[in-house]
Amino acid sequence: MIRSVDNGKTTGPVIGVVGGGQLARMMCEAASELALDVRVLASAADESAPSTWRATTVVETLDAAALAEFAAGCDVLTFDHELIAPDVLEALESAGHVLRPSAAALAFSDKAVQRTRLAAAGVPVPRFDVVDSVADVERFAASTGGWPLVVKPPRGGYDGRGVYIVQSVDDVLDIVRATGGPVVVEELVRIDTEVAVIVVTGPDGTTVTYPAVETRQVDGICHDVVCPAGIDATVSVEAARVAERVASIVGAVGVLAVEMFVADGRVLVNEVAPRPHNSGHLTIEACTVSQFENHLRAVAGLPLGPSSLLSSAAMVNIIGTADAGDPAARRHHVLAVPGAHLHLYGKSWRPGRKLGHITVVGPDTGSALATARDALNRLDSDRDATMSS
Amino acid sequence: MIRSVDNGKTTGPVIGVVGGGQLARMMCEAASELALDVRVLASAADESAPSTWRATTVVETLDAAALAEFAAGCDVLTFDHELIAPDVLEALESAGHVLRPSAAALAFSDKAVQRTRLAAAGVPVPRFDVVDSVADVERFAASTGGWPLVVKPPRGGYDGRGVYIVQSVDDVLDIVRATGGPVVVEELVRIDTEVAVIVVTGPDGTTVTYPAVETRQVDGICHDVVCPAGIDATVSVEAARVAERVASIVGAVGVLAVEMFVADGRVLVNEVAPRPHNSGHLTIEACTVSQFENHLRAVAGLPLGPSSLLSSAAMVNIIGTADAGDPAARRHHVLAVPGAHLHLYGKSWRPGRKLGHITVVGPDTGSALATARDALNRLDSDRDATMSS
Repeated sequence: MIRSVDNGKTTGPVIGVVGGGQLARMMCEAASELALDVRVLASAADESAPSTWRATTVVETLDAAALAEFAAGCDVLTFDHELIAPDVLEALESAGHVLRPSAAALAFSDKAVQRTRLAAAGVPVPRFDVVDSVADVERFAASTGGWPLVVKPPRGGYDGRGVYIVQSVDDVLDIVRATGGPVVVEELVRIDTEVAVIVVTGPDGTTVTYPAVETRQVDGICHDVVCPAGIDATVSVEAARVAERVASIVGAVGVLAVEMFVADGRVLVNEVAPRPHNSGHLTIEACTVSQFENHLRAVAGLPLGPSSLLSSAAMVNIIGTADAGDPAARRHHVLAVPGAHLHLYGKSWRPGRKLGHITVVGPDTGSALATARDALNRLDSDRDATMSS
Repeated sequence: MIRSVDNGKTTGPVIGVVGGGQLARMMCEAASELALDVRVLASAADESAPSTWRATTVVETLDAAALAEFAAGCDVLTFDHELIAPDVLEALESAGHVLRPSAAALAFSDKAVQRTRLAAAGVPVPRFDVVDSVADVERFAASTGGWPLVVKPPRGGYDGRGVYIVQSVDDVLDIVRATGGPVVVEELVRIDTEVAVIVVTGPDGTTVTYPAVETRQVDGICHDVVCPAGIDATVSVEAARVAERVASIVGAVGVLAVEMFVADGRVLVNEVAPRPHNSGHLTIEACTVSQFENHLRAVAGLPLGPSSLLSSAAMVNIIGTADAGDPAARRHHVLAVPGAHLHLYGKSWRPGRKLGHITVVGPDTGSALATARDALNRLDSDRDATMSS
C-alpha cells in the first residue's frame, strides 16, 4: 500500500492526518521543512491546521464515509486525536488502508482497555477496577482504604475533562449512568511528581526515547512542563524503562506519550496517548529532532532522528483567560521577552482552551520556567487591553 | 495603514509576501508558529511556498496590476526576491501601501546604485566603475592594473548568474550590448575568506545583528556556510561594524544580508540583499531566533528576538545534480545521518537548482561541516537510484 520512498518515481508516501488541531498543525510545520506530502482531514475550516495548510479537506463530521474517501487518496493515515470510533478504524484496515498507529494500538485510547492490558502485562499502574455496579464499587473502595477515589469514563476525556475525584458510591454510579457504561475507578495516588516520557517507534520496531519531562497539572489541565524532570537518576531510568515497555505492549507506530506518577520513589503509569503530546512540545526547541518530526518520520517509514536534549527547557501552555482576550492580539508582549519562543495555534479564543504555548531553553529548568512564566504573565495581563479599549 | 497589533479587534497586520520561492516558504514556516497572518503572491502554483501555504494567490505575472490588487488586501508588503521593477514599487508606495523594505531600500538591489551609494558613504568596496564605453573600460582597466576584471549587469543576477570574469574590453562591451545598458566593472579581489553578516532592522530603527558566517561559493553559487566564520576576532568585529553601517545606509526594514570579502585583513562589501538570505539558513537551528522569524517580526512591527548563536553550525545547499534525481525521493539518506537537519523546498528537480539545504549544529564548524557534507554525499550518490531502476 505504501509506495516506496526510493523508487525514483514518487517522493514518498502520501500521509493523511485525521483531525486538524494544533498537533496536526505542528506536524505540518515539520512536514513543510522535510517536504513530506501531508494532507489534513479537518471538521472545520477555522481549526488550527486548516488555517495555514493548503492540503486540507474539510468535512462536516469525521465519520466512516469521510474517512474512507480521505484514506483512498493517502498511503498511510495518522491521527491528531483519539476520537475516531474503533469500528471505523478497524473497517479502514480491513479495506486495506495502513494506519500508523494501528487500530489495535489506538484501542489503548480506551482507559479501561489501557489499564487492564497494561496491568495484565505487569506494568505498574495505580490500583484500579472497571465497575458498573454498587457491589463492584463497594468492593473496590473497601480494598483500597476508601474515599475519595478517582473515576474515569473509558473514552472522550482530555485536558482533565473525564477525570473525577469522587466521595461516594452514588457519585460513581451517577457517572456510570451519565456515560452509559462501566467506568475506571482507581485509588487517589499521593503523587510526588508527574512525569512523561515519549517513545517513538518506527514500522520496523526501532525506537527512540526522549528524556523524561516533569509536568504540572492544574485542575487536570497541563500548565507547565520542564526537562529534565526533577527526579533522581534511578527514577529517571525507571521511567524510561517503563515507557519503553509500555510502547512495546501498545505497539503504536509513531509517538507514544506515557504519563506517569512518581510516588514514594515508584513509577506508576497514569495514561498513555498514541500521538504527539503536550508534554513533548518543548522538543521543538530543546531536542535535536522534535516529537512532531519524529512522528512523521516513523509514519513515513523514514529513519528516526536523535531525541537528545540540547539544553534544559521549560514550556508553559497559553490557556484562554476570561480577561485577556485573544493572545494573537497580544503576542508582542511575549516576543519582547528575550528567549521566549511563542507558538500560537490560530484557534479562536475561549476561556479554558489551549491556544498556544511558550518554550524557553536553558540554562537550567528553574530559570527557563521563570522566564516562560514571566512571558505568559505579560500575555495574560489585561493592562494593555484596558489601555487600548 | 497598519492596523494596531494591540487594538483588541484584529490579531496583527496582514503581511503580504511577494514571490513564492523558498524564502517565502521558510517565512511561512515561521509565520505558522507565531500565527501571523501571512499571504503569499506567487506566479505558479508549484512554487515552493504555494505548495504548502493555504493563503496563497497565484497570478500569471507579478505585474503592477497583480501587485496593486494583492496590496489592497494587505497591511504591509515584503518580498521573497528583488525582481519587481522599481517604478512598480514606487507606485505602490504612492498609492499608500507600506513596503518593508521600502522602495528606496529595494533600489539598492541595483548593483550600480548599491556600489555607488555605499562607496559615496565611505563603505569599503572593491574598486569599481559603472561603464558603457570603450574609453570608460580602458580608463578603469589602466587604473587597476589590468585584466581580468569582474563585470556585473546592475540587475537580474543571482546564484552567480550575472557575474562575469572577463579578459578584454570587447568582453565588457559584449555584456553592455547584451544587457542594454551600463554595467558595473570591478577589480578581481584576491579573496582570503568570504563572509556574510545579517542585520535585522525594525520599523523603529532597532537592529539585531547575527554573528558573521563564512561562505564558500563554487562557480558563484553558495555551497557551504559555517558559523562562526574562521576569521580573527578583530575582522569579525569589523565585519559586524561594516554590516551595521551598510544597514543604516540602506534603511531596509527586515533582514539585510551583507556579503563581504576578507582580503589582507580588510573587509570589502561585495553585495547586499534586502531579504532573508541563503547565508542565514543555519540560523533556523543554530540561533535563538531565525532570520525568517526576525524578518517577519520586523515587518510586522513586533519586537526583534535575540540572534545569539547557540552552537557552531554548518549548512550545505542541496543543488540539483544531473545523476541523482529528485532529492525528495531520497531524503531517507539524509535522515539516516544523526544530527542532519533536512530542509527541502518542494521545488521540481532541475540540475543546478537550489532544492534544499542541510544544517548540522555543533560541536565545532569542522565536524558540523563534515557531517553535513557526508549527508549531502549520501543524497547525491546515484547508487540507490541505479539499484531501484
